[in-house]
Amino acid sequence: MSDRLEAVKQQVESALDSAMSALPGGELSDAMRYACVGGKKLRAFLVMESARLHDVPEAAALPVAAAVEALHAYSLVHDDLPAMDDDDLRRGMPTVHVQWSEATAILAGDALQSLAFALLSDPVIGAAETRMRLIARFADAVGARGMVNGQMLDIAAEQATTPLDLDGIKRMQAAKTGALIIFAAEAGALIANADPAALRDYADNLGLAFQIHDDVLDVTGDEETIGKRVGKDARAGKATFVSLMGLDGARSHAAELTERAIAALSPYGEQADNLRDLARFVIDRQS
Amino acid sequence: MSDRLEAVKQQVESALDSAMSALPGGELSDAMRYACVGGKKLRAFLVMESARLHDVPEAAALPVAAAVEALHAYSLVHDDLPAMDDDDLRRGMPTVHVQWSEATAILAGDALQSLAFALLSDPVIGAAETRMRLIARFADAVGARGMVNGQMLDIAAEQATTPLDLDGIKRMQAAKTGALIIFAAEAGALIANADPAALRDYADNLGLAFQIHDDVLDVTGDEETIGKRVGKDARAGKATFVSLMGLDGARSHAAELTERAIAALSPYGEQADNLRDLARFVIDRQS
Repeated sequence: MSDRLEAVKQQVESALDSAMSALPGGELSDAMRYACVGGKKLRAFLVMESARLHDVPEAAALPVAAAVEALHAYSLVHDDLPAMDDDDLRRGMPTVHVQWSEATAILAGDALQSLAFALLSDPVIGAAETRMRLIARFADAVGARGMVNGQMLDIAAEQATTPLDLDGIKRMQAAKTGALIIFAAEAGALIANADPAALRDYADNLGLAFQIHDDVLDVTGDEETIGKRVGKDARAGKATFVSLMGLDGARSHAAELTERAIAALSPYGEQADNLRDLARFVIDRQS
Repeated sequence: MSDRLEAVKQQVESALDSAMSALPGGELSDAMRYACVGGKKLRAFLVMESARLHDVPEAAALPVAAAVEALHAYSLVHDDLPAMDDDDLRRGMPTVHVQWSEATAILAGDALQSLAFALLSDPVIGAAETRMRLIARFADAVGARGMVNGQMLDIAAEQATTPLDLDGIKRMQAAKTGALIIFAAEAGALIANADPAALRDYADNLGLAFQIHDDVLDVTGDEETIGKRVGKDARAGKATFVSLMGLDGARSHAAELTERAIAALSPYGEQADNLRDLARFVIDRQS
């Protein structure tokens, strides 16, 4: 699985690089490119594995994987802004607004969102009906009913006097990180016009396990390995899965969700072993 | 023409309102809605008139007009941010980051961009091929090769020691405001799968005339009528069409471009009279 993850990472970084080489040179495209480098590209991996399970050719899935990662990169660039989470370190490098400026970070994020939709328009993905099915789902997942709504709930929680409870934090995370992870996992089924229900169930559990483990790493991990600042949430008195469930409680809930994610893959048999490995990896990773 | 402009404005505001009523309530959708209210909705008018010229039903064109205005609204919200143009007044009201917060303004802009693509996915527009044609063109017009690139050139010019020359300012404006105006004017032809060349020529000239007149109003107009701050560019020593051509020079160049825009419409005969009136309106308007 880790070889395959590394291979997908290289494929998708190269696809993004080639998409961005068609842009005018200068600070904007430099910042966009910078924002897309690094990270594990888990979402791209989900797209490529979901495609393989539905006999979708790699060449057709690759622009979708690149679109998901471009969108994810934009969300990180905007999340890191001083007016949002105010982070100076991401993937072990200075954040975009630190490396360039706030204006450049806002615009690079904006243009990465447009680029994601441009990538989803690539005819190599399939018929116009296929691409429209993806785009309609994607626009919904990343907008005010999905990812941006989650980010807004997160910001609102920081400013509220009462921290979120467990239901509140689950709802926030389902929108903030879950919606795009679900889209990525469903993408192969959507391209093949197959039923995405099993993959949705898998991704729903995987996304939450991923987020819980992120909160665990924020307490137990070190900045150098993780590549971003740690301990900020605790210092800010923000509710996290660890503050609400304790370290052991959070770990065992993540393990339980991982089992559920794995169980959801049963319709795919051994073909889905990479996705099972990914689910285990998500709660074992050190970064 | 002004009755028709007002009718389109109401139609498109109502379409946007109904699209946003499907979103979760709260500050995010409040801010998105607020950002879409007011203004002249010239871009929506271009879409609806372009559609009429190609016998595209109003119902099919309306989501496209709404998408263009949602995208335009996002660009204004982000442009007004402290890290960008730092404006506190827009369409006669406090800007989104003044009314709420910077974080809300960033996220409302982000979600309005997603909403624009969601609107372009509406099956009422036409076949999947038709919508894909629009979306591919739109993503290109609003991203790092179009609008966002123009905004970046504008910011770079503010920070440069030498102000832009006339060619530089035309190139910047062609990207910053021209690309979306061209998309709007071409939209009807794109939906009908007709040749958009004449409308592109019209919009190219119209967009530049519009921007030159904006620079004229920034010198001659008053804030209350215009609904945004005036004189900022001159105070900042920023190159504008007026600083480069003088007030009379700018006015006569805008008039010349308007004549060219009108001439480009000749293939459409009298059917295009509303678009001719719009071109005249663009250089006569007081706000």
